[in-house]
Amino acid sequence: MIIIIQCKDRVGLVADISRILSEAELNIISMREHVDKAEDRFFMRLEVDGIADEIPLELSLKQILPEGAMISVNPVPDKKIVVMVTKEYHCLADILIRNNFGTLGATVLCVIGNHSVLQKICDRFDIPFFLIPYHEDKAVSERDIIFKIKAYQPDYIVLAKFMRILSPQFVANFPNKVVNIHHSFLPAFAGARPYKQAFERGVKLIGATAHFVTNDLDEGPIIAQQIIPVNHSFTAADMVKSGKEIETSVLAKALHLVLNDRVFVYKNKTVVFE
Amino acid sequence: MIIIIQCKDRVGLVADISRILSEAELNIISMREHVDKAEDRFFMRLEVDGIADEIPLELSLKQILPEGAMISVNPVPDKKIVVMVTKEYHCLADILIRNNFGTLGATVLCVIGNHSVLQKICDRFDIPFFLIPYHEDKAVSERDIIFKIKAYQPDYIVLAKFMRILSPQFVANFPNKVVNIHHSFLPAFAGARPYKQAFERGVKLIGATAHFVTNDLDEGPIIAQQIIPVNHSFTAADMVKSGKEIETSVLAKALHLVLNDRVFVYKNKTVVFE
Amino acid sequence: MIIIIQCKDRVGLVADISRILSEAELNIISMREHVDKAEDRFFMRLEVDGIADEIPLELSLKQILPEGAMISVNPVPDKKIVVMVTKEYHCLADILIRNNFGTLGATVLCVIGNHSVLQKICDRFDIPFFLIPYHEDKAVSERDIIFKIKAYQPDYIVLAKFMRILSPQFVANFPNKVVNIHHSFLPAFAGARPYKQAFERGVKLIGATAHFVTNDLDEGPIIAQQIIPVNHSFTAADMVKSGKEIETSVLAKALHLVLNDRVFVYKNKTVVFE
Amino acid sequence: MIIIIQCKDRVGLVADISRILSEAELNIISMREHVDKAEDRFFMRLEVDGIADEIPLELSLKQILPEGAMISVNPVPDKKIVVMVTKEYHCLADILIRNNFGTLGATVLCVIGNHSVLQKICDRFDIPFFLIPYHEDKAVSERDIIFKIKAYQPDYIVLAKFMRILSPQFVANFPNKVVNIHHSFLPAFAGARPYKQAFERGVKLIGATAHFVTNDLDEGPIIAQQIIPVNHSFTAADMVKSGKEIETSVLAKALHLVLNDRVFVYKNKTVVFE
Repeated sequence: MIIIIQCKDRVGLVADISRILSEAELNIISMREHVDKAEDRFFMRLEVDGIADEIPLELSLKQILPEGAMISVNPVPDKKIVVMVTKEYHCLADILIRNNFGTLGATVLCVIGNHSVLQKICDRFDIPFFLIPYHEDKAVSERDIIFKIKAYQPDYIVLAKFMRILSPQFVANFPNKVVNIHHSFLPAFAGARPYKQAFERGVKLIGATAHFVTNDLDEGPIIAQQIIPVNHSFTAADMVKSGKEIETSVLAKALHLVLNDRVFVYKNKTVVFE
Repeated sequence: MIIIIQCKDRVGLVADISRILSEAELNIISMREHVDKAEDRFFMRLEVDGIADEIPLELSLKQILPEGAMISVNPVPDKKIVVMVTKEYHCLADILIRNNFGTLGATVLCVIGNHSVLQKICDRFDIPFFLIPYHEDKAVSERDIIFKIKAYQPDYIVLAKFMRILSPQFVANFPNKVVNIHHSFLPAFAGARPYKQAFERGVKLIGATAHFVTNDLDEGPIIAQQIIPVNHSFTAADMVKSGKEIETSVLAKALHLVLNDRVFVYKNKTVVFE
Repeated sequence: MIIIIQCKDRVGLVADISRILSEAELNIISMREHVDKAEDRFFMRLEVDGIADEIPLELSLKQILPEGAMISVNPVPDKKIVVMVTKEYHCLADILIRNNFGTLGATVLCVIGNHSVLQKICDRFDIPFFLIPYHEDKAVSERDIIFKIKAYQPDYIVLAKFMRILSPQFVANFPNKVVNIHHSFLPAFAGARPYKQAFERGVKLIGATAHFVTNDLDEGPIIAQQIIPVNHSFTAADMVKSGKEIETSVLAKALHLVLNDRVFVYKNKTVVFE
Repeated sequence: MIIIIQCKDRVGLVADISRILSEAELNIISMREHVDKAEDRFFMRLEVDGIADEIPLELSLKQILPEGAMISVNPVPDKKIVVMVTKEYHCLADILIRNNFGTLGATVLCVIGNHSVLQKICDRFDIPFFLIPYHEDKAVSERDIIFKIKAYQPDYIVLAKFMRILSPQFVANFPNKVVNIHHSFLPAFAGARPYKQAFERGVKLIGATAHFVTNDLDEGPIIAQQIIPVNHSFTAADMVKSGKEIETSVLAKALHLVLNDRVFVYKNKTVVFE
């Protein structure tokens, strides 16, 4: 059983929480906690052994936690996701493979694309693919996408190289639920064509960043980042190619963390218990 | 205040420990715990805020911990070390620099060398250097070294590229107190001339390993490891040269962990709360 | 056009080779060379721009190279491979995806498995899968496998987690043509169950090694290696799981290098022009 | 002997250069070349074996190279540097140690500081330290610094955490001769207090960048970059502390490359033959 707690900090929280678990005869296998002193904020992730009813346990915990505490006992074990794509296959294919072999930590409900090129790979895995091409009026396309997503009720929406900027209206529908992979080491090279920017600047490392999507483009809370070395012999196209490898791997890592309830969001930052 | 606990595991340990801290009005800043299920062993490192007498707190904790528990409240904050060297300067110099600027997390009491080449750099930093050359009868040299070390009473002995094998008799004097840097990614290339072995095998990465010294050569509990890429253009000598960089950096990292009471030893493994 | 040369070293080789290219009005885009002084051996990989007939160019080059030189002008641009598997999907799936999207640098002709579990994923990608289960008499199974491979005439055979040891007789059929992924940082933990060995040793890094297969188990020329950090919280099973990520990525990298004619084998080592 | 060539590209350059070397009975040990096709620019670094007079060889090469070619036969083997510092010791100490043991690849002529705190460590190594405190009128201080540097005639000036911005007038005196270490992964977090910026953005990796100094702050050609992982438990102060380790190591690497004539500058980028 996994227990997730986020609340205002106070003295004795750990003692009170662990006493309640002990009274419920739950054995702590793993306890990760963090106190953000500047924000006076407490974060905890517990893995416990034993049998307990979720609702009474949640109530008992609520009683000893500060008001406004976010608590979740046994968060949805088999999460569900919707994936959004444009034309690049690498991140999507990795997700489909893991989904196919039951190692994703979630079920892919469907894929939404604004181009049709990735229809075929979804067919190969018997995953529904919906083409929602970009309409001149962005609001129209987004309305269609939101409608489709809401029909599926996913826990998370994964932008697996979805190359359109989503409006604040769209994002407001799914707060802290949209995970994006950006093809640079943010905050360097935010915005369009980061590899071209990286090439022109002559950097010696290129990166990828997985983050939650907020209203501010490429400014949401960062979940995971990774880099690979490049050198003078790389063209911008070579960087794109090499970059795909880490994009795939960073997104896979971020999804693993998010889907295992290891990522907490507070303001514009994350606490990640790896 | 730092509190270190290692004992047999049982249900409710965290609750009991945190209750005692709470009663002593100590606020937990950071709590790291690990349960080794196979060994049924509990490890905890706490950083707490507040004022408390060490001895009564230690007694209170002892009462609720299983018999044989190892507990340490506020482990020696300014640790003391003795460094042993042969001819290579890189690890020693790094330690002397950090010692000089107060960022080592320990005080270097003295340096013992079996060659005189590193006398001069110790002089530059006003650190006593003792030359104890290797006697035909190893037992004689080791007796002298032990005598010198015991006079200084260090918390740890650091083998900063000390190129002689210490006898079990020597090691028995300082259990889990001798930190060594081995110039390979153990268990690959244990023993002598690891870079030559690495060169001949044609590996694409070389490594360094910091570990506690036990009776079995290069077999003690590993604290930290690191690697760097190499390629066909590296001669064995180039590997030696590049390897020095990670030897320095791995030993520095291991010392940082050990001197901050972040490393627990149980049987032949470590638990490291980074 | 790619030109690959391996021969005994002598003074003036680069001058002679580049003169011939210049006379053929071929412009050098990229020239990578290495001289192994201990072995007195010369390695060169050239990418050149321009139009030239392969056979006369190869002849001109042969005339100025030492006897016994291995030279290859424009090595098979679209290589062909056969993949051999047992039960684990991760390396195979990665290869099938890249093959499907034309980014592997080769065509997968077929997959041979000694278990049937990976039949289905091959079907999804319309790649022939042949089940050749392990016969009590190993020679029988290997004869069937060799027969199948020879029917397809691949440039390389890729052991994508094929968990059986191939006999010297088998290997002799395909010298420097069989690429294996071993799930450890060789030479550490050769042989069976490397993650279990790694867990028991308490290492802080685990690795994967791609190498050519020779008669000596896990002793062939190394192409690529990579590591990831682990810690005390990893069970042997966790190491297996994390290890799969680097196994996939190291094998992908090794195949990229091999299929782009960037890997030279001499004795038991490789020269890799990344 | 090392030969460095940078010029406009043309067909047959490698052939002509290697013919001249061959005629001079020089054997090529290592040849690294790069053609920047977009800029139509040719870069080459040669290590050759044999005996030849530098000046006639340079002349022979000049005759076959395009006009305006930069060529250097046997660049100053024992380079000389001046180091500029403020208060932080880590980069300076690393340079002083390597200088002391003859492994820097250069001689440290003197250290110039705008604070006196690093006087003592220079004294320990018998290296002249000059205090040139920052004058209200920056031009005055810079005039003093330039005067001091010119007296020493170094090959390179190393800013080892010199925390003042140098004026374009200053930089113009030493084009491509001033190496700086910036404490972020440029172009992210240029300017002041990069770790504070990194902390506030919640990044998961922090970096350091060594670059040549140009008129545009933190915009000069990048020589080397490196990163280390951080997480939510890092305060801005922890990032500063961890960052020092990679600052030291990136600057050491960049100096190694520059002092071994492995770095070419063209426009705002570098070609680095590692």
